[in-house]
Amino acid sequence: MTIDPLVIFTPSGKRGHFPVGTPILTAARQLGVDLDSVCGGRGICSKCQIAPSYGDFPKHGVTVREGALSDWNAVEDRYDRVRGLKPGRRLGCQATVQGDIVVDVPPESQVHRQVVRKAASTRAITMDPATRLVLVEVVEPDMHEPSGDFERLQAALRDQWQIDSVTAPLSVLQKLQPALRKGNWQVSVALHQPAHSDSFQILDVWPGLHEGGLYGLAIDLGSTTIAAHLCDLADGRVLASSGLMNPQIRFGEDLMSRVSYAMMNPGGDREMTQAVQQAIATLATEIAAEGGIDPRLIMETVIVCNPVMHHLLLGIDPVELGQAPFALATSGSLTLSARDIGLTTIAPAAQVYLLPCIAGHVGADAAAVALSEEPDQADQLTLIVDVGTNAEILLGDKTGVLACSSPTGPAFEGAQISAGQRAAPGAIERIEIDPVTKEPRFRVIGCDLWSDDPGFTEATKDTGVTGICGSGIIEAVAEMRMAGLLDASGLIGGPEATGTPRAEPTGRTFAYLVHDATATGGPRITVTQGDIRAIQLAKSALYAGARLLMDKRGVDRVDRVVLAGAFGAHISPKHAMVLGMIPDATLDNVTSAGNAAGHGARIALCNREARQRIERIVRRIDKIETAIEPRFQEHFVNANAIPHATDPFPELAKIAPLPQVAFGASGSAPGGEGGRRRRRG
Amino acid sequence: MTIDPLVIFTPSGKRGHFPVGTPILTAARQLGVDLDSVCGGRGICSKCQIAPSYGDFPKHGVTVREGALSDWNAVEDRYDRVRGLKPGRRLGCQATVQGDIVVDVPPESQVHRQVVRKAASTRAITMDPATRLVLVEVVEPDMHEPSGDFERLQAALRDQWQIDSVTAPLSVLQKLQPALRKGNWQVSVALHQPAHSDSFQILDVWPGLHEGGLYGLAIDLGSTTIAAHLCDLADGRVLASSGLMNPQIRFGEDLMSRVSYAMMNPGGDREMTQAVQQAIATLATEIAAEGGIDPRLIMETVIVCNPVMHHLLLGIDPVELGQAPFALATSGSLTLSARDIGLTTIAPAAQVYLLPCIAGHVGADAAAVALSEEPDQADQLTLIVDVGTNAEILLGDKTGVLACSSPTGPAFEGAQISAGQRAAPGAIERIEIDPVTKEPRFRVIGCDLWSDDPGFTEATKDTGVTGICGSGIIEAVAEMRMAGLLDASGLIGGPEATGTPRAEPTGRTFAYLVHDATATGGPRITVTQGDIRAIQLAKSALYAGARLLMDKRGVDRVDRVVLAGAFGAHISPKHAMVLGMIPDATLDNVTSAGNAAGHGARIALCNREARQRIERIVRRIDKIETAIEPRFQEHFVNANAIPHATDPFPELAKIAPLPQVAFGASGSAPGGEGGRRRRRG
Repeated sequence: MTIDPLVIFTPSGKRGHFPVGTPILTAARQLGVDLDSVCGGRGICSKCQIAPSYGDFPKHGVTVREGALSDWNAVEDRYDRVRGLKPGRRLGCQATVQGDIVVDVPPESQVHRQVVRKAASTRAITMDPATRLVLVEVVEPDMHEPSGDFERLQAALRDQWQIDSVTAPLSVLQKLQPALRKGNWQVSVALHQPAHSDSFQILDVWPGLHEGGLYGLAIDLGSTTIAAHLCDLADGRVLASSGLMNPQIRFGEDLMSRVSYAMMNPGGDREMTQAVQQAIATLATEIAAEGGIDPRLIMETVIVCNPVMHHLLLGIDPVELGQAPFALATSGSLTLSARDIGLTTIAPAAQVYLLPCIAGHVGADAAAVALSEEPDQADQLTLIVDVGTNAEILLGDKTGVLACSSPTGPAFEGAQISAGQRAAPGAIERIEIDPVTKEPRFRVIGCDLWSDDPGFTEATKDTGVTGICGSGIIEAVAEMRMAGLLDASGLIGGPEATGTPRAEPTGRTFAYLVHDATATGGPRITVTQGDIRAIQLAKSALYAGARLLMDKRGVDRVDRVVLAGAFGAHISPKHAMVLGMIPDATLDNVTSAGNAAGHGARIALCNREARQRIERIVRRIDKIETAIEPRFQEHFVNANAIPHATDPFPELAKIAPLPQVAFGASGSAPGGEGGRRRRRG
Repeated sequence: MTIDPLVIFTPSGKRGHFPVGTPILTAARQLGVDLDSVCGGRGICSKCQIAPSYGDFPKHGVTVREGALSDWNAVEDRYDRVRGLKPGRRLGCQATVQGDIVVDVPPESQVHRQVVRKAASTRAITMDPATRLVLVEVVEPDMHEPSGDFERLQAALRDQWQIDSVTAPLSVLQKLQPALRKGNWQVSVALHQPAHSDSFQILDVWPGLHEGGLYGLAIDLGSTTIAAHLCDLADGRVLASSGLMNPQIRFGEDLMSRVSYAMMNPGGDREMTQAVQQAIATLATEIAAEGGIDPRLIMETVIVCNPVMHHLLLGIDPVELGQAPFALATSGSLTLSARDIGLTTIAPAAQVYLLPCIAGHVGADAAAVALSEEPDQADQLTLIVDVGTNAEILLGDKTGVLACSSPTGPAFEGAQISAGQRAAPGAIERIEIDPVTKEPRFRVIGCDLWSDDPGFTEATKDTGVTGICGSGIIEAVAEMRMAGLLDASGLIGGPEATGTPRAEPTGRTFAYLVHDATATGGPRITVTQGDIRAIQLAKSALYAGARLLMDKRGVDRVDRVVLAGAFGAHISPKHAMVLGMIPDATLDNVTSAGNAAGHGARIALCNREARQRIERIVRRIDKIETAIEPRFQEHFVNANAIPHATDPFPELAKIAPLPQVAFGASGSAPGGEGGRRRRRG
């Protein structure tokens, strides 16, 4: 008895004996090795490239000799001539087993490859897209056995891909006959399997092998900005990232003013729906152009957003979200046709997946943060705050997760701030104030120099210094507090009390002059008492929400804090803690997750199973409604102080002891122990 | 031990013992008795009306005493006051068992009631609609347990109606919140279950009990006319029937000229698609107005049509149907959103069901005829011909069914006939020609008098006599043949040969004058030699198709002939047989099924299971492609004679022996045995 040759796959280590002549692709499939193929082994798509290894492999107990694979054949030859195969690579569908062999499956030949992390804080994504491309060979029609072209395509998918239940929308049926004939009865189909379905839907069809790729959009639809990533659905690569302002801003800066607009103006909700749908359609077209692809190759869109945006996007009047009990029209995930939300520039049959909402004030964006940051998998008690116009807050670990939202308003995004602006070149994003001289230095977006570095003026000639963005205002307020320009109650001291002429009187209060560009026609940038109040309101809401979850959990401190949100990456943890935005923690345990909601959207776009996972997670999250919690108001009032009226911040005190100043309404230090004394070293 | 009271339901005979106090509706449900309820036993909908019977029932072995049901209660009282209950009726959800009782379920309280036949030839329809109305009571939202309104509606459907898998389109989600609040958390939902699904879709939602009804359209989309029935989905009642001309006629009278138009004119298929979609949308609006209902209450549309119309309706270029191998883009049944085919005036989430096509030339209309006429259930070998611009032909019995289509052209519908017109008031529909005097008498649509009856002129003053419709031309040609005005080859005899001045010379041929209305400004109606040729071509195609199926089946005669088609009801079997449209049979066995395709559409509209049944039947039908059958041409040529060149018509000969005339091209009898001799008595 002869034993069939042994085939060992790396990196999986899967192995088995196969008869001489078995194609490597066949062996891989039988062993469940993750080896890609679009053409099903026809030597057309080249997705099944493998790298044979020769020599002694004591670890595997085999020796691979020359001739362990069949000779390079005509199909490989042609492919190599036309496109070029990397040295040492073979086509898995062409090379057949001739002897014991070790076969490496390189990452790009794996269906479920991992997308390389872009930043340490960004988790890797395992590819498992809901839409994939397959090539099929369809039997030609026969007058004596009449059947529809689509029915023969169904049979081909069953025979060649073991896919049983397939439907096609009219847009595909309309293209099918010419595609089959042009492709000489070979067509590529984009097969989509919704999150909760055993069935597949054909989203598009092309003659022969479609080489244009399949793409998806991950959209983070915020109250203020709409951000999108264009991803390749085969490998998760981001081709382009783009964003634009949410045009609904003209109906109201924050969510509640938009809800009011809908309540006050009959048809107002429809106006807002139209505005946001048009913006998304525009964004889709623009990002496709930026990525250099035909927008009609965008097969899927995943959208995450807060509940009000969710309803306004779907054409649901958000009025119920503006009043107790804050009932969502629907909280579950949704799979829609893209044209249902006016997205008509992408593939006609494109699908849209909306993540589930957690509660009336905690949306699909918070669900996306949970998907990205996985608090439900954490060993340590983790607080995640997604900072935006509305803050989503998650607290939990493996034993359970709590969630709430808090209406911070747009101050953290630079809105409602006198010199505030969005994060764009020329905006102050970093600031330091010398505790002795009270002189500031700063950096603006678009320039790596500090304002007191030589050449700064020249380097920022084009952009100028135009205002302060969200992370800049957080740093400014925290620095003012650390420099003794601001007391714990949030009052700015006057020039006498602070000893600097930059503390300028403005009526009955004072403002701190950061930069005066009036000489060159620019603005005079100050932080006013009103700005401080706006930031205090925002940060109190954020902190109170977090504190409420800590109460529910029965803890006074958390192990880790994760700052998420479109500009979460830009917030300095130390400054956030000085401000009292977040609870006290060691700085090492305060990290930024960047745009975690957007990253969650990208995960759901690239991984179908993640859609089912987040739906399970959301069902298990305990939802807290801040608006009806009696302690919220108390937490809010206490959190108004900087950093806090009652909660101790021992870790913060170790790294940034704060001066015990206190200013009266007039800006002078009212004497006594705290006045002008500074402790910071 | 006491035995619980016995409850016996009639007419089902189902019986069981139930504890005192059990509502009759509950007893019915437990026994599987078909007793309707929309409100689920809340005493609101009154669908569960029953009629208790009292006295001795030896057949059932019980005596029903006074007090066997609970007393008339407040709910019944209110219902009776507001709407009135028929004497002897009770609400099944209110009346409870108190003693042995016999309960009759009247037909209108049965879900699966049968729709009363309209004609003896029309089969009854058992109601089992895919869309039904249910009332549910939804739990109010709770801030402490946040969930979407839709998710609580799902839970209510699960709890109150045992319906597990329910989705809702955006149009429903957009209406849901106001409906729930207006209905004080009671809503009626239209639940739709597609033919091949375990899941339900909500098509619409209304506050409280929706009393406006749910409706459906059954549409027979023909090449020449589009006919629709508006049906009540609760009881199958036809509220209105309406039709209009297919506007595609301007692109080509018959199917092949439309296919040519699409081939010759880029975008021509889209023009035709738009035309037919608009026509159907118009028809839907008009028929709703005629039926006195809001068109948005039309939840479902079932469409039957031939393959070319099928593709043109769906926006699929029909070019492949114009050339061998006549491949359909899809042959299976389709469930679509109504707006996919431009039907936007009915319910926004309305569904469209298209029956499956049988083959490239045998469409969903033929499938509908099979569903209506059930040749697969017949004991006798049955030939069904659906007469239209394209004829669909089915031959079969319990052992198997064959199908083909034949391109008869529009002559049978009065098109391509010199005095032809569509069936409308003023059109000649019946005609008799006196075999001795050769004088005609006729009847027109809209008047019961014959043309030689006193008062005919007065009675037809408004409509006039305007032309000949399809059934009229068939009778005219057959009568001409029986009166010796036409020979077996189809030549019209001249005045000398026929002995009547009504045989008028027209160039080298003759025409028969039926009616001269020129004196009153009307037309001069004749049957020309060209008309005869058109009818001969049409009937030869029809007969040849039938003969081909008989060949395949290996028979020379059939047991039964069923004439179907929009005007099948109007064709006289005797005249059809004289013409040789259909094979010889005894007249008793030639029946009309009326618009069997339209009736099949109505069955599929009212009965969900019928959709699955016809899909099974269609898979089993043997399809014959006439275009490639070598014998078709031979059969066609032989069928050109009236009635036939070679096939004997013994049964016809018994009832209508035909004169053995033969006219030369000049219209004179060429002497010999047949000339002018008449055998008819």
